Amino acid sequence: MKFRPFFIAFLATITLFAQEHIHKSSRALEFPNVPGYITLKTDLHQHTVFSDGNVWPTIRVGEALRDNLDVISLTEHLEYQPHKADIPHPDRNRSYEIALKEAKDHDLMIIHGSEITRQAPMGHSNAIFIEDANKILHNEAKDAFGEAKKQGAFVFWNHPAWYAQSPTGNPILSEFQKERIKNGELHGIEVINVGDYAEESLALALENNLTIMGTSDIHGLIDWDYVGKGIDRPVTLVFAKERTPESLQEALFAGRTVAVFNSLFVGKKEHLVPLLQASLVIEKANYIDKTSILEVTLTNVTSSDLLLENQMEYTFYSSSPVFTIPAGETKTLNIKTLEKKDSVTLTLKALSAYVAPKEQAVIDWEIKVE
Amino acid sequence: MKFRPFFIAFLATITLFAQEHIHKSSRALEFPNVPGYITLKTDLHQHTVFSDGNVWPTIRVGEALRDNLDVISLTEHLEYQPHKADIPHPDRNRSYEIALKEAKDHDLMIIHGSEITRQAPMGHSNAIFIEDANKILHNEAKDAFGEAKKQGAFVFWNHPAWYAQSPTGNPILSEFQKERIKNGELHGIEVINVGDYAEESLALALENNLTIMGTSDIHGLIDWDYVGKGIDRPVTLVFAKERTPESLQEALFAGRTVAVFNSLFVGKKEHLVPLLQASLVIEKANYIDKTSILEVTLTNVTSSDLLLENQMEYTFYSSSPVFTIPAGETKTLNIKTLEKKDSVTLTLKALSAYVAPKEQAVIDWEIKVE
Amino acid sequence: MKFRPFFIAFLATITLFAQEHIHKSSRALEFPNVPGYITLKTDLHQHTVFSDGNVWPTIRVGEALRDNLDVISLTEHLEYQPHKADIPHPDRNRSYEIALKEAKDHDLMIIHGSEITRQAPMGHSNAIFIEDANKILHNEAKDAFGEAKKQGAFVFWNHPAWYAQSPTGNPILSEFQKERIKNGELHGIEVINVGDYAEESLALALENNLTIMGTSDIHGLIDWDYVGKGIDRPVTLVFAKERTPESLQEALFAGRTVAVFNSLFVGKKEHLVPLLQASLVIEKANYIDKTSILEVTLTNVTSSDLLLENQMEYTFYSSSPVFTIPAGETKTLNIKTLEKKDSVTLTLKALSAYVAPKEQAVIDWEIKVE
Amino acid sequence: MKFRPFFIAFLATITLFAQEHIHKSSRALEFPNVPGYITLKTDLHQHTVFSDGNVWPTIRVGEALRDNLDVISLTEHLEYQPHKADIPHPDRNRSYEIALKEAKDHDLMIIHGSEITRQAPMGHSNAIFIEDANKILHNEAKDAFGEAKKQGAFVFWNHPAWYAQSPTGNPILSEFQKERIKNGELHGIEVINVGDYAEESLALALENNLTIMGTSDIHGLIDWDYVGKGIDRPVTLVFAKERTPESLQEALFAGRTVAVFNSLFVGKKEHLVPLLQASLVIEKANYIDKTSILEVTLTNVTSSDLLLENQMEYTFYSSSPVFTIPAGETKTLNIKTLEKKDSVTLTLKALSAYVAPKEQAVIDWEIKVE
Repeated sequence: MKFRPFFIAFLATITLFAQEHIHKSSRALEFPNVPGYITLKTDLHQHTVFSDGNVWPTIRVGEALRDNLDVISLTEHLEYQPHKADIPHPDRNRSYEIALKEAKDHDLMIIHGSEITRQAPMGHSNAIFIEDANKILHNEAKDAFGEAKKQGAFVFWNHPAWYAQSPTGNPILSEFQKERIKNGELHGIEVINVGDYAEESLALALENNLTIMGTSDIHGLIDWDYVGKGIDRPVTLVFAKERTPESLQEALFAGRTVAVFNSLFVGKKEHLVPLLQASLVIEKANYIDKTSILEVTLTNVTSSDLLLENQMEYTFYSSSPVFTIPAGETKTLNIKTLEKKDSVTLTLKALSAYVAPKEQAVIDWEIKVE
Repeated sequence: MKFRPFFIAFLATITLFAQEHIHKSSRALEFPNVPGYITLKTDLHQHTVFSDGNVWPTIRVGEALRDNLDVISLTEHLEYQPHKADIPHPDRNRSYEIALKEAKDHDLMIIHGSEITRQAPMGHSNAIFIEDANKILHNEAKDAFGEAKKQGAFVFWNHPAWYAQSPTGNPILSEFQKERIKNGELHGIEVINVGDYAEESLALALENNLTIMGTSDIHGLIDWDYVGKGIDRPVTLVFAKERTPESLQEALFAGRTVAVFNSLFVGKKEHLVPLLQASLVIEKANYIDKTSILEVTLTNVTSSDLLLENQMEYTFYSSSPVFTIPAGETKTLNIKTLEKKDSVTLTLKALSAYVAPKEQAVIDWEIKVE
Repeated sequence: MKFRPFFIAFLATITLFAQEHIHKSSRALEFPNVPGYITLKTDLHQHTVFSDGNVWPTIRVGEALRDNLDVISLTEHLEYQPHKADIPHPDRNRSYEIALKEAKDHDLMIIHGSEITRQAPMGHSNAIFIEDANKILHNEAKDAFGEAKKQGAFVFWNHPAWYAQSPTGNPILSEFQKERIKNGELHGIEVINVGDYAEESLALALENNLTIMGTSDIHGLIDWDYVGKGIDRPVTLVFAKERTPESLQEALFAGRTVAVFNSLFVGKKEHLVPLLQASLVIEKANYIDKTSILEVTLTNVTSSDLLLENQMEYTFYSSSPVFTIPAGETKTLNIKTLEKKDSVTLTLKALSAYVAPKEQAVIDWEIKVE
Repeated sequence: MKFRPFFIAFLATITLFAQEHIHKSSRALEFPNVPGYITLKTDLHQHTVFSDGNVWPTIRVGEALRDNLDVISLTEHLEYQPHKADIPHPDRNRSYEIALKEAKDHDLMIIHGSEITRQAPMGHSNAIFIEDANKILHNEAKDAFGEAKKQGAFVFWNHPAWYAQSPTGNPILSEFQKERIKNGELHGIEVINVGDYAEESLALALENNLTIMGTSDIHGLIDWDYVGKGIDRPVTLVFAKERTPESLQEALFAGRTVAVFNSLFVGKKEHLVPLLQASLVIEKANYIDKTSILEVTLTNVTSSDLLLENQMEYTFYSSSPVFTIPAGETKTLNIKTLEKKDSVTLTLKALSAYVAPKEQAVIDWEIKVE
């Protein structure tokens, strides 16, 4: 007690001198809104010392702010508690509570979540938008899912292709999971986990109308596993009507997501195509003097490099038909339209954007010539 | 005369202190040999003060050494002499002679060349492996081509899609050029000139069995037009039996080339596929313990980023089906073969490597599992 | 219990795919040995979740390996326990035990330590090389120091100039501390803490013959507070007879240290001068042909930039009298010796290396001309 | 003639596609104006193909624009003409005329100059602000200087310490030069030439009241000799009353210059001190709450790193007494003033700024506390 005044000074001082200006940095993720929706950048699968992670929850908040996320969830394993010797009687809600307090002065939503952890064939699942994690801790997996549903949780299957649980890397739905889906107790599936995009998981998502998810599943530091390797953490972009937890939850149940990992985008066609359309902004379009060559300037407003291929009948002047527009950069395409036109449809395939296994998104932009 | 001893000291001193260590730098171009042939890196279309360029020929030698080229040709416009006021009576061989002297202590071939410069429909053409540039200067284009042939020259059409000569950017062969081809006076065509890859020029090359060329057409500085913009100069890779001018000439007449501009490769299938096969070296291949996931490590031994797409029935663990292996870097692919195999055929499409308009190269590697 | 086999697989897999190759990176600290001693790179003031830090002790081990340290100590506040709600009955030795286990397969020494935390005038002090941290927790600071001494601890005063405890930033020794020194219970003093080099602390070290220390005092992440800002963590270089904890302890009691923070070095003359002498290696020395200009090539073998000023009667050709040799780089000095000599004494002042307040180290190198 | 319309199109097109946006780049030199004067960035010693350089004069204009210079002079050797075989009857004014035409749409002054080239003891000298270079070409050096004076030229001695002319690297004034100074025919001296700062030349400048000059003496490419090595070209900053050739000439005759090469500044005290004062701008100054620590924020508005050392009686919190403020960056100094003050004189030594051999500039800034 007697330390109180002192330590307030202590902390104030550290803050003063650490000069930790958290601002939008080169690692900040950026994606545009789409017509009718706000695009929320989320990472809904993370761990701290409250299960098998290696950091206090405050670090997860700091990482999220540096990465410019809108939403995180700390999904501690309910059952797996390797730090039990030091954190002996864990209230499973603590990780959430600490993060919530840390984030209170920032524009970052903390969603209450937990990981229900079982061996195959049940596997690992995250339940988010829960009310009390302690109540979800049950011996029977079935009871855990039942309680999650009771709390109104959105539940998704983690890393289905993980070979410790799926030795060939080719996941199949178990009877247990089929029943959960039927009962409205399982709603999503990770299609990207850590660095792994599993085409088979995408197939399962489409076949069973599950929400497509991408997560970092971070245990150590985002700086070591991602940033320091020159890559971004995987995220789920959620297209919400408003910037609120309720809207986020509605959007997840409605399946309005795209999973993103660096330049890789995975989503249902109806969500991925509008996202890419909004991601590439036409700055200007005019004919080069005395030619039938249309000069179109495009800006990639996302933090992901966009890898594109010409799908028009017209060819390009001074650009390969396959080209990259790096994150945040502008490129000029010179389209040989053979004669001058008032408007042209620019059609590009996004080579690293999947709407189904092996099927890439094709996007049109209507260009009015100036 | 009296300055001689002094100026020898002068030049020696400058060399001593300039400390211009020309070594393989980050801008050095690198491409592997292919079975049966040595891969020569060439830039066979360049200008100096002896026509409309802005540097003395020695600078072109310095640029080539920095770029790790094997061969250059200084192809001055025979007819266009904007520096005539200061260089009044140009011997059209001077550019070649000065470069030859500058290069004599380096492993760089200088090929004697000239540009025959006409308006459309004849256009611009480079004649290389010539003996005397002065004799090629004729009023009639036909006579110029005739003399070039007499000297044994290899002749190629420059920038066919250049819109100053082809207003739509879509070149067609003129009657004059058709006759030159028939007479054995026109042998190649630029498919990449400056930054422009013209699919239409590739079509012409394939239809008329012309040698595929890529050149910088540099007038100013390679450092300003390419290196400083973060890009490489375009080159023609020539697959020669030996590292001699004669072998180079034989290979050009035989059409054994691939044009390269950064990550873009353009060539006939029989030359491009072996080049890409040699460009990606399998370092090791083994199954991850207790799984049917084959771990294959590949190194890109070129100075170009390679952009690839999985074409196998098997999917990947921890890698997108579309991926880049940056220049000089190594990547591990984890292939889900579903059961353990002794050998696997890795099949990838090189997304930025064209064997025909809109047709990309597909390459197989036979992998023996360790 | 039933999770055991599963979670072993779980952890093995994470390790497999995280591919966390800890190798000497650009952030790795490097300093040479000096005649008679091994130079140990240490950071002996750090915190984890076991006091007011934000990471599990394993992260501190990972940071130390990335920074190429030889020794760390996790010095939790014995008295200040803000995580008490979640870690309710902390054994004050746990932080040490966990780090020790994590480091067991690495060449990293973990030294058992604790921070005795009091308000001014007693202040904060680290006791390292302790046996049982719990026994040092006492109401009376005097008793804490007494117990530390009983355990054989090396004790140093933390951040004396910290203005929360020293409002002018100008520290003075309290009566309490003077008594500790007299009793052999206080042996060192931080001259560099976080980013602060306090000249006044150096004066106190020299006046009272205290060991000069530099530490990071890290609470958050080294990646955020240092690496991400383009700076190194402060360290104490300790000159030990052998690479053992016993030798390290002997060296600390003997005061053989230099504190380093980026390009700043602070130490007693007898330790700093040999370190700098070893830090700059003469590669070759010869006269430029037909001149009396001696060309001397030097390599900076440390990870710190060295900022130097000519102190000779001779001037330089082609170098400013004040110059930097960046970390790991080589520079050639051209010394105008006016006539040719067989040997020359190169004398440089290290502008950013202090042996006393405002007094910089001057170093001689005897150069034999080849 | 018939090529005219064609080649106009040709050049226009090249310009169009080269997209050579010459803008202020990372290599752009920046220095502030000083009270009463405009600071002009000049490089008044350069060569092209019109003497022993390797580029057409247009390249020198392009380099100057990229380097953000205000003034250049192309000072061809009148006597040394190694390209005579190809440029047989050189009008010594041509280099100037071509550069003038190239620069006409840019904010770059071209000053007419020539190099009078003799062996030691007369050496090399540049005459600038001349009217007709041809008339300065004389057998007798004395006559050349006489004619230069007649034309109103400002004349400076090039690279006095160059060991090809001064074997010890220690220059002395010849009788010839003393006479030229007496006659008003020699006004300045290069103190920095290429990368060489000669303290002896600075001594000569001060003893004889000669204008201090710094030049690149470029023969090849600025990109290869400077930019590509990570260094800047040497320049002479001239403090002119207006941005006109006449003002520049007046300032040079009046000796108002500072020579700069990267972080090295050399000038007379009355010019160097105001330049450095203007180079470091105080952004704000306030006491840290509840302390006597004054927080002062400074911005280095130049393109040179500034290397500084505290010269006050007060010490710093959180900064070494020796520190660098990199080009264009801002740094906060925390000054321990021991008690709160309304104003403080900040005194710093610029460690790499010389007002005399071995004497560095010391600068005061009056700081009003907010």
